[in-house]
Amino acid sequence: MAKAFDLTLYLVIGPDDVRGRTVEAVTATAVAGGVTLVQLRDKTASDAEMAALARRLLEVLAPHALPLIVNDRVEVARAVGAAGIHLGVDDRPAAEARAVLGPEAIIGVSAGTFEEADLVDPAVVDYVGTGAVYATATKADAGAAIGLEGLAALRRRLALPMVAIGGIGLSTAEAVAATGVEGIAVVSAICGAADPEAAARDLREAVKRGRQGARGGEGAA
Amino acid sequence: MAKAFDLTLYLVIGPDDVRGRTVEAVTATAVAGGVTLVQLRDKTASDAEMAALARRLLEVLAPHALPLIVNDRVEVARAVGAAGIHLGVDDRPAAEARAVLGPEAIIGVSAGTFEEADLVDPAVVDYVGTGAVYATATKADAGAAIGLEGLAALRRRLALPMVAIGGIGLSTAEAVAATGVEGIAVVSAICGAADPEAAARDLREAVKRGRQGARGGEGAA
Repeated sequence: MAKAFDLTLYLVIGPDDVRGRTVEAVTATAVAGGVTLVQLRDKTASDAEMAALARRLLEVLAPHALPLIVNDRVEVARAVGAAGIHLGVDDRPAAEARAVLGPEAIIGVSAGTFEEADLVDPAVVDYVGTGAVYATATKADAGAAIGLEGLAALRRRLALPMVAIGGIGLSTAEAVAATGVEGIAVVSAICGAADPEAAARDLREAVKRGRQGARGGEGAA
Repeated sequence: MAKAFDLTLYLVIGPDDVRGRTVEAVTATAVAGGVTLVQLRDKTASDAEMAALARRLLEVLAPHALPLIVNDRVEVARAVGAAGIHLGVDDRPAAEARAVLGPEAIIGVSAGTFEEADLVDPAVVDYVGTGAVYATATKADAGAAIGLEGLAALRRRLALPMVAIGGIGLSTAEAVAATGVEGIAVVSAICGAADPEAAARDLREAVKRGRQGARGGEGAA
């Protein structure tokens, strides 16, 4: 089913990401810079807290007609009338979320391997989040980084719209977009910026350059 | 020999990186944001062009007492009185540069593998540039990315001050700094920003957090 959503610059945000600011304030400035879709992610909040924050975000996004995606919590997404849900590999099955949220909901799932990609049902799922492209921690999950080659391989394997995530920033957004994904998802590259609007604008330009096939590189000093 | 230089936020810049602005203008704003060292890199300019640009950059940096490092061109570094030189793996040997530039010059070399690291002579070289940490192009050199694990391994192998380069940005600077390197080198993360001052400030904060051992992560959406 064709739905109106744009993965170009996908902001993932939650209370732990915003360095003392509010999620609403950072989202509002990021949207002014060109974010095309927002996912609210908070693994520790209660459903009630998450719903309250989601409602405040919906007020920020409504004037811009941008969709809000809720991470993991299907019931929260339904309760607040969010546009969709994003489900991690260990979250509820997409088919269950579809049954709860109905045919109009945007349903995204994560896939970082061929095995996970092959489990995605294109009759149920609207987009796939792929990563982590780059490692952002020195601990266990660093080994899970798929790199540009892994990303390009998943891109070839999956026909669904795809958004790449994991350590992507201004230095890498162009190369990531050049793999043919529909967009990039970022947390720190926007939430960690003193000026999220400028950060979003720069990132969106970089994605645009990547799509145009321009290649940038920065190797050893 | 102990020399006064600070690798914390190392800007690599050249005429191809600044998106229609001047190298001097971008450098000046980046320095206002907290860049600690600047390397002029231009693989295609003539020596005369490079020297002219280096002299203009020295004027920008002098009031801040920040060192200018020239990439590759030993004679240019000497002619303009730059603080030092950075030599890639295929550039002139460090010992030759030392003979030309003298004991006070800052000499940096690139090393992306154990083999290259083992060739570095700590009696001649002042710092090592390591990378590429992350791939920034989908073509051949993507396979050369060493990742955080490769970086940490090189950090353990080398006692010299070390600056990491390659696709590092706001999303990854903290994790890179947490590996124990003295600093990060960036091109696009500053040169590609509409506001290089804000970008530099955010990156410097991220390096500081990484040094403090705080770990940030952003996994699959």
